[in-house]
Amino acid sequence: MASLKRLLVGSPIRTARLAHERLSKKTALAIFASDALSSTAYATEQILLVLAAAYLAGGANAFARVVPISIAISLLLVIVAISYRQTIFAYPSGGGAFIVAKDNLGTLAGLIAGASLLVDYILTVSVSIAAGVEAITSAMVGTRFAGLHEHRIWLCLFFIAFITVANLRGVREAGALFAAPSYAFIFSFLCLIGYGLIRYYLNPGLTVPVNDADLKIAEGYHPEPLHLFLLLGAFANGCAALTGIEAISNGIQAFKQPESKNAATTLSWMALLLITMFLGASVLAYFFKVHPREHETVISQIARVVFNGHLTWFYYVVQATTPAILVLAANTSFAGFPRLASLLARDRFLPRQLANLGDRLVFSNGIIILAVLSGVLVWAFSGDTSRLIPLYAVGVFLSFTLSQAGMVVHWWREGKALRVMRSAAADSAPITRTESSAAPPTRLSGSFEVRRLSAQTPQSLAEVSRLERTSHWRKSLVINGIGAIATCVVLIVFVATKFIHGAWVVVVLIPLLVLMFLKIHRHYVEVAHQLSTEGLGQLRPIHHQVIVPISGIHRGVITALEYAKSIAPHHVTAVYVNLDDEVTRKLREKWQQWGSGVNLVVVASPYRSLARPLLNYVDRMKRSAPNEVITIVLPEFVPAKWWQNLLHNQNTLFLKGALLFKKGVVVTNVPYHLEH
Amino acid sequence: MASLKRLLVGSPIRTARLAHERLSKKTALAIFASDALSSTAYATEQILLVLAAAYLAGGANAFARVVPISIAISLLLVIVAISYRQTIFAYPSGGGAFIVAKDNLGTLAGLIAGASLLVDYILTVSVSIAAGVEAITSAMVGTRFAGLHEHRIWLCLFFIAFITVANLRGVREAGALFAAPSYAFIFSFLCLIGYGLIRYYLNPGLTVPVNDADLKIAEGYHPEPLHLFLLLGAFANGCAALTGIEAISNGIQAFKQPESKNAATTLSWMALLLITMFLGASVLAYFFKVHPREHETVISQIARVVFNGHLTWFYYVVQATTPAILVLAANTSFAGFPRLASLLARDRFLPRQLANLGDRLVFSNGIIILAVLSGVLVWAFSGDTSRLIPLYAVGVFLSFTLSQAGMVVHWWREGKALRVMRSAAADSAPITRTESSAAPPTRLSGSFEVRRLSAQTPQSLAEVSRLERTSHWRKSLVINGIGAIATCVVLIVFVATKFIHGAWVVVVLIPLLVLMFLKIHRHYVEVAHQLSTEGLGQLRPIHHQVIVPISGIHRGVITALEYAKSIAPHHVTAVYVNLDDEVTRKLREKWQQWGSGVNLVVVASPYRSLARPLLNYVDRMKRSAPNEVITIVLPEFVPAKWWQNLLHNQNTLFLKGALLFKKGVVVTNVPYHLEH
Repeated sequence: MASLKRLLVGSPIRTARLAHERLSKKTALAIFASDALSSTAYATEQILLVLAAAYLAGGANAFARVVPISIAISLLLVIVAISYRQTIFAYPSGGGAFIVAKDNLGTLAGLIAGASLLVDYILTVSVSIAAGVEAITSAMVGTRFAGLHEHRIWLCLFFIAFITVANLRGVREAGALFAAPSYAFIFSFLCLIGYGLIRYYLNPGLTVPVNDADLKIAEGYHPEPLHLFLLLGAFANGCAALTGIEAISNGIQAFKQPESKNAATTLSWMALLLITMFLGASVLAYFFKVHPREHETVISQIARVVFNGHLTWFYYVVQATTPAILVLAANTSFAGFPRLASLLARDRFLPRQLANLGDRLVFSNGIIILAVLSGVLVWAFSGDTSRLIPLYAVGVFLSFTLSQAGMVVHWWREGKALRVMRSAAADSAPITRTESSAAPPTRLSGSFEVRRLSAQTPQSLAEVSRLERTSHWRKSLVINGIGAIATCVVLIVFVATKFIHGAWVVVVLIPLLVLMFLKIHRHYVEVAHQLSTEGLGQLRPIHHQVIVPISGIHRGVITALEYAKSIAPHHVTAVYVNLDDEVTRKLREKWQQWGSGVNLVVVASPYRSLARPLLNYVDRMKRSAPNEVITIVLPEFVPAKWWQNLLHNQNTLFLKGALLFKKGVVVTNVPYHLEH
Repeated sequence: MASLKRLLVGSPIRTARLAHERLSKKTALAIFASDALSSTAYATEQILLVLAAAYLAGGANAFARVVPISIAISLLLVIVAISYRQTIFAYPSGGGAFIVAKDNLGTLAGLIAGASLLVDYILTVSVSIAAGVEAITSAMVGTRFAGLHEHRIWLCLFFIAFITVANLRGVREAGALFAAPSYAFIFSFLCLIGYGLIRYYLNPGLTVPVNDADLKIAEGYHPEPLHLFLLLGAFANGCAALTGIEAISNGIQAFKQPESKNAATTLSWMALLLITMFLGASVLAYFFKVHPREHETVISQIARVVFNGHLTWFYYVVQATTPAILVLAANTSFAGFPRLASLLARDRFLPRQLANLGDRLVFSNGIIILAVLSGVLVWAFSGDTSRLIPLYAVGVFLSFTLSQAGMVVHWWREGKALRVMRSAAADSAPITRTESSAAPPTRLSGSFEVRRLSAQTPQSLAEVSRLERTSHWRKSLVINGIGAIATCVVLIVFVATKFIHGAWVVVVLIPLLVLMFLKIHRHYVEVAHQLSTEGLGQLRPIHHQVIVPISGIHRGVITALEYAKSIAPHHVTAVYVNLDDEVTRKLREKWQQWGSGVNLVVVASPYRSLARPLLNYVDRMKRSAPNEVITIVLPEFVPAKWWQNLLHNQNTLFLKGALLFKKGVVVTNVPYHLEH
């Protein structure tokens, strides 16, 4: 097993190398932006799937609404991206929704954001992998591999396993592995859009062949006229395009220095690419009059018609790079989920094992948990993107909203701190520390030094004025305020339109997760309290009683007796369970020679159990000497070969398990190593 | 789990009740004879299946051969039954093939017999259950449950689970559960034969409707003329009727006293019933010209035509009691397999866990192993009787042969002992003990007292003459000799005709099992040798070094330090693994207050592992003080609730596992019990 692990994951990496595991902007774009960019592979289709309800109800022109809806989503995207740029500078050490909400809105808000993001990460993996596999099976339509569609769950699980192993190897190697296909996708998708527009310009009558026998409609929708609620549903579905936009702000620490600047630049590039590709795909879908189909994705249909005839090979390039980036999108979560889980674990809201760096300097436990949960989800939803979409985006927009609202409070506090500084400077009186304690204690580093300064000596008026000029806190507050309101509205729209289609699962799950966080936290606090050395004096002396359970007289038992006598020379009792009177009589005789004066107690066992009479004896001794520590010295064979364990009773193991729960009882194993 | 076990299996039973768990003759017939009797449900069919090969090759009269073949098998049955009656009296404490062969032919022969029987028991379960389920699905032919045939594997597994639970409850309760259906089968089967003969007498033209589109042929056979080899193959297949006849001689100790006499009577009754039912079924099959069919058993076809029209309900009685007895036949093995396994285990040829009586006074481990293996077999052969039959009977006839051959040697030795006694009586010289040592030491109780007497004082001539008169050793030798030769011939025929059809599996498996027995035996002998107190002096004093691995300073650690100091006040070292320089520095400071003078060693861990640096430190200490015992005192939390274990690192568990394999290292757990 150990060597298999090494082969897959690689050799351990020294802690000292931690600082070097950073990403360049180009690699970071491949890793962090792949989630957002890859959603262009399915976002347009998700809009069309809802519009199909109106089309089937006779709205011949229904699919044309994809363009205004996409423009609305793009505007929302611009707002969110600008909002997150501010967060990146205000929280250079990593400003995920969890941290921002916790710092500014309190722990509960932080936990809600954390729960939303964890759910979102799991869904990102499931949705992306499912969509990637759909791109592959779409390319197989009309070939002799068309049956691959039936095996999509296995393909999904294979890809999840593949990403898991890549991530267990460590973040930098994962980046190198993924950068090339990411850029290949961006390039081929831009080519698709560019060449598609040219072809449409040259031949405006070009459309995708329509066969409505195969028309697909969004999960849970039925033919109905095109009213506002349906449009909002289509808009909500399309908002899947925004998922993943926060990944960069969560992982600023993975960037090369200067982290914030590099991260912000990467975010802008990502937003630009995303809007271009998403809008481009929606416009082409409109131009070519694409209908969503059961066995082929919208992008595949567009690519087929654009590259039909003379550039057919490029169709396959598009279809090959699409699953590639979707797999990378899943990979985004493999960077984000373990990081967030480790933050929660460090604050003692999740098991502490999640806070440990594995031997390849990655949070191995988080990676494995994510892989298992997303695999289960893919399996439960048969790897069908359109069935997973209603669960998606609740978590995303909830965390967006909390994060932006947190930033509003952040800027408000900054403005307040400046006012206090100005009045202090005017009075030349010292700033009281009470005032500054309103700011959270650890995360002081904003886009500039207001917080740090406000907690120190009073500043000169000139200094305060300089800070006020460079602060722009009012502008920032307005920007994040708009972001918060916009994302909150979308969240409400999403829950309202998708609740019965699956969003309720997430609405129920998030509070449950928060409750779990709180329960875990309470346990750790309680343990820390119980283990505290507060009020303890010096080490106290211990009074021993030693019990040696014996199964006969042999070298293993004699070694154990020797050990027991060395601990408490005059307080050793050997205990034997009588299963056969004759055997017991012989043992008593032999004891004269080998017992070395140790007291031998024989206990009865009417039900042939070995453990029960021993445990009862321990209880009796415990009652008669409540203040003494009882040590059970267990003789234990250690066979030379593993299979030999099968040939020996596992009584020792069972006894150890049962004794663990008795207070004041210490278990000592004296092994006797067998040879051959 | 514990309460589920109690619900299914019942409360523990005291050892003192062991002697009372005995069976009356009637109950014993139901339990031990059901295997042999139930084979009438498929033995005739197995003959017809081979004859079908000749029928398809144009031998219109081929199926008529079923009668002479059945008569030959019945004769063989009589020989075997008489042989086994002798064994029952010679070995009143249970004379299975294993014991008889071991006593008289040596250990190796005993082990071969033991391996054969174990394989046979497993196959008995698989074949019987499969045949029982076939009886059920046959009854469904023509009804709307005809599709049940497709689910027969699940039905098989259900029945195996049912018998397993019944047996885990204990042998007497199992007997009560099974006696009624067993007698119901015997009654209905005898009715079938009697009424069938009457109907044939009244209406000689009555035949089963034949539809050869559905004709079934034995696994691996192809149409071929009726030559000798095919007839032998049919005979070998029909010998399945003999399986289970040895069950009684194996389980004499389960009978009420006088065990031997009751067992022998039961055996005679069983043989009589078996011959009547088997021959009756074969004759009816001949009279009614039954052809074996794919979806309906031969017995079902016979019963349909016999009870057609006016007594249709009795057809269902026959079809309902057939699976009932077949399930009981499987139950025979659930009595025999664990008993034999425990005998082998007591002689240290199988893991000793198989020798333990469970808390319901049955050999629970053997029962569970049998259930699992037979379940796997049913699953692997799709629950098809005709595919399992070629594997069956090799083990049966091999053990028959070894058992009878062993009895021949037994009688020969008895004759020899009598001659020695006579010459000693004539000389009035004392019998030397050397002579009597030719007889095995423990199993002296023969059908009379020759063995015991021969080992004692010399007898008078009159006494010896009396013994010679009652001995009949020559007659017994001849009877068992005929039995040995007959079963050996059948064994050869079986292997020759069935080798390529599956018997090779068993031919390969039995030697492998014997090798396993010998390897296990060698291990136990070796362990006993290593643990022997031979050459040991008095207890030696021990020099201690104590290591306390610590993860910080808290109450759990302090309890452990107190304990460590009580063992070896001046030889305690606390070891801390440095994962973070800052944390380590604080620990060193705190150590001034809490260390109580204990030496603190900090070890580096470049790869963030906790266990590796600790193990290395232990190794270094071991090398510097090779003659001292190193005790590792491990502080260990015990959470109040099981789920809280998930919130703590399992480092202690991992360390314990790794330390177990270091010689001269003792591990002591000092638990610290958490509350809430």
